[in-house]
Amino acid sequence: MRTQVAIVGGGPAGLLLSHLLHLQGIDSVVLERRSREELEAEIRAGVLEQGTADLLNEIGVGERMMEEGARHRGINLQFGGRRHRIDFHALVGRGIMLYGQHEVVKDLIAARLAAGGKIIFEAEGVGVRDLKSEGPRVLFRKDGEEEELSCDFVAGCDGFHGVCRPCIPESACATYERRYPFGWFGILVKAPRSSEELIYCLNERGFALISTRSPEIQRMYFQCDPEDDVANWPDERIWEEMHARLANDEGWDLIEGEIIQKGIVQMRSFVIEPMQYGRLFLAGDAAHIVPPTGAKGMNLAVGDVRVLSRGLAEYYSSGRTDLLDAYTRTCLGRVWKAQRFSWWMTSMLHRFHQEDEFRYRLQLAELDYVTSSRAASASLAENYTGLPVE
Amino acid sequence: MRTQVAIVGGGPAGLLLSHLLHLQGIDSVVLERRSREELEAEIRAGVLEQGTADLLNEIGVGERMMEEGARHRGINLQFGGRRHRIDFHALVGRGIMLYGQHEVVKDLIAARLAAGGKIIFEAEGVGVRDLKSEGPRVLFRKDGEEEELSCDFVAGCDGFHGVCRPCIPESACATYERRYPFGWFGILVKAPRSSEELIYCLNERGFALISTRSPEIQRMYFQCDPEDDVANWPDERIWEEMHARLANDEGWDLIEGEIIQKGIVQMRSFVIEPMQYGRLFLAGDAAHIVPPTGAKGMNLAVGDVRVLSRGLAEYYSSGRTDLLDAYTRTCLGRVWKAQRFSWWMTSMLHRFHQEDEFRYRLQLAELDYVTSSRAASASLAENYTGLPVE
Repeated sequence: MRTQVAIVGGGPAGLLLSHLLHLQGIDSVVLERRSREELEAEIRAGVLEQGTADLLNEIGVGERMMEEGARHRGINLQFGGRRHRIDFHALVGRGIMLYGQHEVVKDLIAARLAAGGKIIFEAEGVGVRDLKSEGPRVLFRKDGEEEELSCDFVAGCDGFHGVCRPCIPESACATYERRYPFGWFGILVKAPRSSEELIYCLNERGFALISTRSPEIQRMYFQCDPEDDVANWPDERIWEEMHARLANDEGWDLIEGEIIQKGIVQMRSFVIEPMQYGRLFLAGDAAHIVPPTGAKGMNLAVGDVRVLSRGLAEYYSSGRTDLLDAYTRTCLGRVWKAQRFSWWMTSMLHRFHQEDEFRYRLQLAELDYVTSSRAASASLAENYTGLPVE
Repeated sequence: MRTQVAIVGGGPAGLLLSHLLHLQGIDSVVLERRSREELEAEIRAGVLEQGTADLLNEIGVGERMMEEGARHRGINLQFGGRRHRIDFHALVGRGIMLYGQHEVVKDLIAARLAAGGKIIFEAEGVGVRDLKSEGPRVLFRKDGEEEELSCDFVAGCDGFHGVCRPCIPESACATYERRYPFGWFGILVKAPRSSEELIYCLNERGFALISTRSPEIQRMYFQCDPEDDVANWPDERIWEEMHARLANDEGWDLIEGEIIQKGIVQMRSFVIEPMQYGRLFLAGDAAHIVPPTGAKGMNLAVGDVRVLSRGLAEYYSSGRTDLLDAYTRTCLGRVWKAQRFSWWMTSMLHRFHQEDEFRYRLQLAELDYVTSSRAASASLAENYTGLPVE
């Protein structure tokens, strides 16, 4: 089998890249380890930056998002029992779209298949070869048969635990990492919305977040020990904790409901540099991980594949590699700014060590400042809704 | 001896308070451990926020400052060998005044003495008594004689190592503290200015700062081990280090000169809460310490005594204690914001642990963001030139 660009990984990065390349007449094949059903059921991030939503509309896959997604014009920060709204629209003229990552994946799969695009689901044992040559190959098994896909380029869109990043020799790259001393306990709840817009809350007991998936399904998180076990948290204890953290002076109340999913998310920051090795280009989680507090994960992946698709388009139209050569530099400026923002939001909104009262006071001062200064609010707003892609 | 307000400490906080009270017809006595000559020779901070400079003008002690001080409309941030200007005037319509703290002290002493104010220099063994009563007393020795000053209120303006703060029982207060794993090696240099405006520089080797005292005397700092000894730093080694840290792509060069003073400054953040105990009110360094990176120390002291003088004026004109009762709350909102800013500037501009590359990259990303976003630049500018006093 042969294609121009072999894309390892059928998440938002891989599928979007495939579609962007298709629109420029470039052929690709997406190899995905999971089945279509598994992929479409995996519930992950749900906040699209304005620019991400705009891109999905521009390339014709935004129709359902515009119908079912929820446009938010701001978020709420709660601390000291009081809630403060950050009005994104008033501050920077942009907003965000709440629309699940798995819904984006569904829309992209549908668009790729409708256009005759090739996605190989349940591709097992994927391995990439000859990355330093002009003819790299991707090996995999499908329905028990060994297959080989030869190509001009490999896009590693297979996430943090994927097979592509480890193909870059340690001597050819540097990695930067931070682990956080807490995780997020996440629940999905059958209930109406407790709040029109997201609530990010810092309380003496720790962080809590009220988000949403749909008018019927709500997403909520609270900071927990990363080593904790969901078995330690019967529903009653979860609600008690959520009520305690979100207690406020304004009579607002959390709406409970049936908890239909529980899970603990680890928190990590990670960057590999460069994001390229020979003919392999990493994009999205394969190259960098952010803690979820800034809602940047999927948006960074989208930014990467925009840059990569432009580079590949330049190569196929003119033979020039200027943009491909600049791939790492172009992406990492934005990636590090998003790392900074995600780290900042995380540091401001979580309790670190219970005994470090100086730090906690600084965090409250930061929240007090951010919610009282137009410049600081605008800085949060421009990062949350998305800094421009270069 | 009797007065209305006994002021312990003749630094900028104590002297300014005495003058502000005088302007409202309230009598005070300033007790200072050092001689006038020592006090006037102590070279410390030198950056006045716009509001601090405005206040000195309003109360008639700004004449020499307006002649000899240097009005700066911005600062420079240097990293990755490139310099970026933060234009305070364009961003927030305010600036700063470079004028040494010891010069402010000289002007205030002159103004107090000219107005018949009482400053007792070389007051030894100062102790405060009966703070919970309506008639507190301050004991001290002057020229070998035991003296007693009875008063209505005591203002503790005697700095971080003064005698007033320890009079507050531990059970009646909380303290918050952070020490930093580095210090500032400071030098005074006989040379013309190397730069019109301050340069804050982050380099792989650490932080460096180019400041100024006058057209002939320059102030420079570089990050060092807080346990280091000035004896380890002959002039030649200092210049080598300064040149290495300030190396840049723009042909700018540091102007060397005779080094007339060397010293190592420790870096610390500290806050006590409340800032009041009975009839004792702490102001300035006695109540809070900031690392010098944000140039906030003297400005915070000025903010405190403004609030305190208004409270005392209300008390003496109406007998009401509303403003005095709110002293801690009014001051600490601003103090914690300044702590946040000083901690942020310090964290962004120093190398922490050489091996923590993730942190260093975040710092470079922060600098990249701050110098490329108008909102972030404006946030730095509004803090550096001074948030409004409530």
